[in-house]
Amino acid sequence: MYRLYHVPLSPFCRKVRLTLAEKRIEVELVEERYWEGSSEFLKRNPAAKVPILRVDGRNLPESSAICEYLEETHPEPPLMPQSAVGRYEVRRLVGWFDDKFHTEVTSKLLYERINKKIQNSGYPDSGRIKEGSKAIRFHLDYMAWLLEQRRWLAGDMLTLADFAAAAHLSALDYRSDVDWNRQQGVKDWYAKIKSRPAFRSILADQVPGFTPPPHYADLDF
Amino acid sequence: MYRLYHVPLSPFCRKVRLTLAEKRIEVELVEERYWEGSSEFLKRNPAAKVPILRVDGRNLPESSAICEYLEETHPEPPLMPQSAVGRYEVRRLVGWFDDKFHTEVTSKLLYERINKKIQNSGYPDSGRIKEGSKAIRFHLDYMAWLLEQRRWLAGDMLTLADFAAAAHLSALDYRSDVDWNRQQGVKDWYAKIKSRPAFRSILADQVPGFTPPPHYADLDF
Repeated sequence: MYRLYHVPLSPFCRKVRLTLAEKRIEVELVEERYWEGSSEFLKRNPAAKVPILRVDGRNLPESSAICEYLEETHPEPPLMPQSAVGRYEVRRLVGWFDDKFHTEVTSKLLYERINKKIQNSGYPDSGRIKEGSKAIRFHLDYMAWLLEQRRWLAGDMLTLADFAAAAHLSALDYRSDVDWNRQQGVKDWYAKIKSRPAFRSILADQVPGFTPPPHYADLDF
Repeated sequence: MYRLYHVPLSPFCRKVRLTLAEKRIEVELVEERYWEGSSEFLKRNPAAKVPILRVDGRNLPESSAICEYLEETHPEPPLMPQSAVGRYEVRRLVGWFDDKFHTEVTSKLLYERINKKIQNSGYPDSGRIKEGSKAIRFHLDYMAWLLEQRRWLAGDMLTLADFAAAAHLSALDYRSDVDWNRQQGVKDWYAKIKSRPAFRSILADQVPGFTPPPHYADLDF
């Protein structure tokens, strides 16, 4: 049995949860308030971050390394294509969302509005929120451009790149930070991914003090 | 023939250069002043970052995705172990250096002292430099702890994890920001990696306006 230390709205944790669920790997979810830095938690992970996957008595941090590990140990269904170029493209896009999108959008919207309150670490910075609201438009347009040429973000098949993107967007959607009317192609892609069984646990998340909008869990949003 | 768009002191570019050189892949290096954001460059890479590897007319950004691509297309000599757990550990450590070490150390020392001057983007922030100088000690101690149990950072063989770490440390060493006397184990590891032929081009780097200390290129530092 696997155990995942996580927080519900973390896009990095959601990416791992989606990967586990898509591969039908049973997992026990344990919420970890990592910002409180308990010594028990720091022992599990000196980087003091979530997610951490507990496997056979080992604690594995680092979401992308975890997903590649799950892909290698549970190859069915595959979430990476066969060709080196195809695999490159998946990794490039995972990097795009977990690095660039995270810095420009997620950290400026989700972290300012929700994490700061939960972690009791100050008030939202309206300048950063404005930057994030502007930046997400560019990213939605970029995704739409990719999806004009491809069925999924990295090509013909569903991959880790789609889960990385959906993890960020679903967390932002919990606070209505995604304008689904901006790009029909992105909305169609999200509707497709949202209706997968792997997405159910994410749509059922509840964060005390924050009620998601009705469209959050609605498959016909 | 491969072409790499890079800047000399970028740890992400150095990681790719080391990987190319170790695999004896010939490459043309082209310096790219990415912060000037020429439209030609943005066309090559909408993320506006280096490195970019040009292969068969395609521009590939994202250093970790590039290194995995090179590992898959040029498997000799291998820079990843065979087992899934071993590969996980390499990826975890690459993430450790490119994310945590980068945020806590490289961005606070190298970027404050050198990048700001080269990019003409303000004066070094002494508070950040102090934080970086403090944080690097924790990282050197962590590396020493790993190297007490292992020949190389991720295990028995030289891997991408060693190149990721050496890329950051070598860039910091250009400005004498690494205290090599702190941990003998780390110094021994760096001496070993520094003497590899793959390291030569890195040790020959010259950044106008900044002269490296004599020990920078000295194999008996």
